[in-house]
Amino acid sequence: MPMLKDPSKKYKRFPPLKLPDRQWPDKTIDKAPRWLSTDLRDGNQSLVDPMNGEQKWKYFRMLCELGYKEIEVSFPSASQTDFDFTRSLIETPGAVPDDVWLQVLSPCREDLIRRTIDSLKGAKKAIVHIYLATSECFRRVVFGFTEDQSVELASKCAALVRSLTKDDPSQSGTEWAFEFSPETFSDTSPEFVVRICEAVKKAWEPTVENPIIFNLPATVEMSTPNVYADQVEYFCRNISEREKICVSLHPHNDRGCSVAAAELAQMAGADRVEGCLFGNGERTGNVDLVTLALNLYTQGISPNVDFSDLNKVIQVVEECNKIEVHPRAPYGGSLVVCAFSGSHQDAIKKGFQAREREGKQYDDHWQIPYLPLDPKDIGRDYQAVIRVNSQSGKGGAAWIIQQHLHLDLPRGLQVAFAKVVQDMAEKKGRELLPTEITDLFRQTYFLTQNPRFHIVDYNISPDRSSSPAPPEPGKTQDTTGLKRVFEGVVSIDGVEYKLRGRGTGPISSLANALRTVGIDLDVHDYKEHAVGRGRDVKAATYIECTAAGTKSKVWGVGIHEDVVQSSLLALLSAASNFSPSRQGSPILSKSTVNGTNTVPDIINVLEAKADEM
Amino acid sequence: MPMLKDPSKKYKRFPPLKLPDRQWPDKTIDKAPRWLSTDLRDGNQSLVDPMNGEQKWKYFRMLCELGYKEIEVSFPSASQTDFDFTRSLIETPGAVPDDVWLQVLSPCREDLIRRTIDSLKGAKKAIVHIYLATSECFRRVVFGFTEDQSVELASKCAALVRSLTKDDPSQSGTEWAFEFSPETFSDTSPEFVVRICEAVKKAWEPTVENPIIFNLPATVEMSTPNVYADQVEYFCRNISEREKICVSLHPHNDRGCSVAAAELAQMAGADRVEGCLFGNGERTGNVDLVTLALNLYTQGISPNVDFSDLNKVIQVVEECNKIEVHPRAPYGGSLVVCAFSGSHQDAIKKGFQAREREGKQYDDHWQIPYLPLDPKDIGRDYQAVIRVNSQSGKGGAAWIIQQHLHLDLPRGLQVAFAKVVQDMAEKKGRELLPTEITDLFRQTYFLTQNPRFHIVDYNISPDRSSSPAPPEPGKTQDTTGLKRVFEGVVSIDGVEYKLRGRGTGPISSLANALRTVGIDLDVHDYKEHAVGRGRDVKAATYIECTAAGTKSKVWGVGIHEDVVQSSLLALLSAASNFSPSRQGSPILSKSTVNGTNTVPDIINVLEAKADEM
Repeated sequence: MPMLKDPSKKYKRFPPLKLPDRQWPDKTIDKAPRWLSTDLRDGNQSLVDPMNGEQKWKYFRMLCELGYKEIEVSFPSASQTDFDFTRSLIETPGAVPDDVWLQVLSPCREDLIRRTIDSLKGAKKAIVHIYLATSECFRRVVFGFTEDQSVELASKCAALVRSLTKDDPSQSGTEWAFEFSPETFSDTSPEFVVRICEAVKKAWEPTVENPIIFNLPATVEMSTPNVYADQVEYFCRNISEREKICVSLHPHNDRGCSVAAAELAQMAGADRVEGCLFGNGERTGNVDLVTLALNLYTQGISPNVDFSDLNKVIQVVEECNKIEVHPRAPYGGSLVVCAFSGSHQDAIKKGFQAREREGKQYDDHWQIPYLPLDPKDIGRDYQAVIRVNSQSGKGGAAWIIQQHLHLDLPRGLQVAFAKVVQDMAEKKGRELLPTEITDLFRQTYFLTQNPRFHIVDYNISPDRSSSPAPPEPGKTQDTTGLKRVFEGVVSIDGVEYKLRGRGTGPISSLANALRTVGIDLDVHDYKEHAVGRGRDVKAATYIECTAAGTKSKVWGVGIHEDVVQSSLLALLSAASNFSPSRQGSPILSKSTVNGTNTVPDIINVLEAKADEM
Repeated sequence: MPMLKDPSKKYKRFPPLKLPDRQWPDKTIDKAPRWLSTDLRDGNQSLVDPMNGEQKWKYFRMLCELGYKEIEVSFPSASQTDFDFTRSLIETPGAVPDDVWLQVLSPCREDLIRRTIDSLKGAKKAIVHIYLATSECFRRVVFGFTEDQSVELASKCAALVRSLTKDDPSQSGTEWAFEFSPETFSDTSPEFVVRICEAVKKAWEPTVENPIIFNLPATVEMSTPNVYADQVEYFCRNISEREKICVSLHPHNDRGCSVAAAELAQMAGADRVEGCLFGNGERTGNVDLVTLALNLYTQGISPNVDFSDLNKVIQVVEECNKIEVHPRAPYGGSLVVCAFSGSHQDAIKKGFQAREREGKQYDDHWQIPYLPLDPKDIGRDYQAVIRVNSQSGKGGAAWIIQQHLHLDLPRGLQVAFAKVVQDMAEKKGRELLPTEITDLFRQTYFLTQNPRFHIVDYNISPDRSSSPAPPEPGKTQDTTGLKRVFEGVVSIDGVEYKLRGRGTGPISSLANALRTVGIDLDVHDYKEHAVGRGRDVKAATYIECTAAGTKSKVWGVGIHEDVVQSSLLALLSAASNFSPSRQGSPILSKSTVNGTNTVPDIINVLEAKADEM
């Protein structure tokens, strides 16, 4: 199944650099690089529909607010729009913060360089960025240049920029910096890159205080990212006067490795990264500045840019670029902080529980399974973390119930309810909304209204016949062995029954009372907790029962301000769940189900185990 | 502008492995790995709306057609749908090609493992894949296990799988393989991973012929991809009986480096990669199998999977996953083989021209600036490579004209037309369609109809007065200095003029004829080429003129079956472009423009330079 008879004939393997003494694999990234956003230049140039003036302004303002200090705003010699935008930034008072550098790009052509520098007149801080493609392919196919001719042109253009900027007294109101890109760096012989940069450096004469920026573009990503890192390390080790140089990266993403390339190349010595938010840019895009920043963040390193309201950033970027952030884009994607699969949901839920148990606060060390970043750090909440579809298990629906109804379901109930949820999800063939899941829970356990059983009136009193002796003076009453009696009226399928039952507590006494009309439930599991706080506090009770003599189990749930009544409601909720349609084990006779008023047959009368367990 | 007062308090830096004698940075990838597609399991589990049965079948068939030989089809113990799908694959005759392995996943739990293996009954080739999270965080938070307990459970489950599969005589109809994933490998101590895998290996007892698969998931991507490669290299070097082991990778993309991680880890010794097409999967997705395959392809290595019709693959994946492939996704994205910016377009155009000039065919070595892959290799054409908006330069529009009208515009005309195109793109504020550009070209140069000038009738004959002497016998006529005379009727703004002019060829004789009615053009540049072949061949003529005495230049274009008439049309096209509204330099007097029949003033009569240059 090879795609071509001999693909190696059509494509050549990229020859890696020989650098056996490379140092970068032993390094780590310890601080944020200088960032250059080229959203308004490289990004904008690559859009199907480039930004209009208003969008460019909006984007520029956002970049400043996020904390970017170097922003490539245009290619002024290529379009009047770009030239005018640059002028308007400079001429609008207060538009450019004092600590922000405006960067503009020009090819190595005298007339275009002059026009480019014209666009910067009056800027406070400006970086003039010129580029010349240096690879063999470009020199041969595009320019028809020898290496010497390329060096001469780059050097001449650097000298021209110098004469028009830092050497021109009329331009002294501007703080000038200079950047040179040997374009197609990643496909150029490393020796030639050093040679041409040495010539450019000589022409510009940088200082330690105002270093020259050498930007090393992976114009097209050519190989695995370790090769780019080797190339950058070679450059850093071989260029002279390293202290007068800012080594900048400009990776593209043709092989899907631009983020890795930028990170490994920082380990290899680079100081600065050029890219775009969410990886916009020609073809597969420039490296994604959001991912790079938040990758630092999740390693405990401040990126010096602020993505705490990532949703707002996404909104502006999508509006201006007319390209959606992919649902799986690292950090920004809508599905990135979600888990659908059962085991993931379960682990995340346990992680949050452990965090709560350990009393951890927002700022405390973050460690949650499957969530490398606290969603709150980027302006998201925890509710969307777990979403439920047919692939989800008990943890997912339980999470939703916990988040929305504040009910902490016992494990067995989680398993039982997960089946109900999975059935619905498979039937609908799609994700279930949280409201669908909470509605389903309310319905399943009759939280709003129980269609069959309804307590009209009741009283629970101590069973006189079993009262222990009155306490000795100064001691509390010994309640061991004290029995309770349920007396009340229960409506069953529309018919009111006056019932009486005796047990160790409300649940067992009601269970025994029901037994007198043939409703015979064994209580197996029981849990109760408070919901809410203060005045609005309610009790939630969960009861698992079997119909006596059968093996099928059902859960009932009761919620009420009164803890006793919540227990009774839970038992009746379980009783209702033994309807023939649900479990196939009717506990009321057909005659009742059909609406006649006869008392149902008693299927099996056993001693109730129900108790205040 | 730090995002937190002290972010290092909340997140800890991932501690890299100490592996100073690592070997992988000196390695390259020389062959395709074994691929495992988990689109139907890990991919499907992460979808908002999981696939229905029909979609699963469609996807499975596509994976087989693409050439995948190991396909993880389900998590049978987690859902009835998954169990049933597995059964239907096995029970449908011919559904699973003989050389395709079905893989299914199960947690380390006895009942779930039994159910999982039940789902495989009767399969021809089956891989049972069990997993257990091994990181400290998971052991503590999710399971409450010690290391010893984890090892014991994994070992026990491996033994159980063995007893139910290869050791069970009733299962001998199936060829069994076994995979164990220490889940959260990337966050587990490398020593413990080796320890637990040794125990599992001992329980399974693999052979060289049927190696055990140890899958090392970056369940969450924890650090830069070199760290993952170090971890994998450590595992490969420290696990015993390496020859009985297939080391598999399962990277996720939380830090945007999954492709890099998979590639560097292959260099570090891994044999197999698990992932999904276009990087579907939980959160940021599994590693993208399309990018990995085509990254190999563009290095001259056959990936053993066939993406020659990538658009069809995209269509199926988008339909089944309900997630769009991002426009900038490597290889698959719609914008990936497009260039909008002027300099890119120009270089690409030159690259194609060089390729044509060198007579290269489809299978020949591919080297085009900015295009790492021949779009035709993935079923795309060259027409979409260059798209035109306000950021585009001369190369872009010229490319479109060349592709659609087969006209090879001279450089000066490219520059002139690019301005017209850029105006329109800026006015519309969006990309221009190829038809809009070709329409604009036809309009601008009056290819359909010239609104002002029209040749009603003409004849071009040798100028008797300048005829040279008849040729000597046996020699051809010496035409040096031979003049031509244009005689004809030209309609100008609706009025017909009978004109006569003398020159060295048709263009100069018509130019001189026009001069007699005050239309005075100097011809500066001229180019002519054939369009099409055989019967339908036409001539295209490009002429650049100035109105005499002015500096403003215009281009005219003529296309006609007759080469002489195409020249004449080109001249009249240029003449029409001197209309007052276009250039501000009328060459006909107002009286004519207003429709009266007076012959226009002659602005400037000069000797025409026009010639058959």
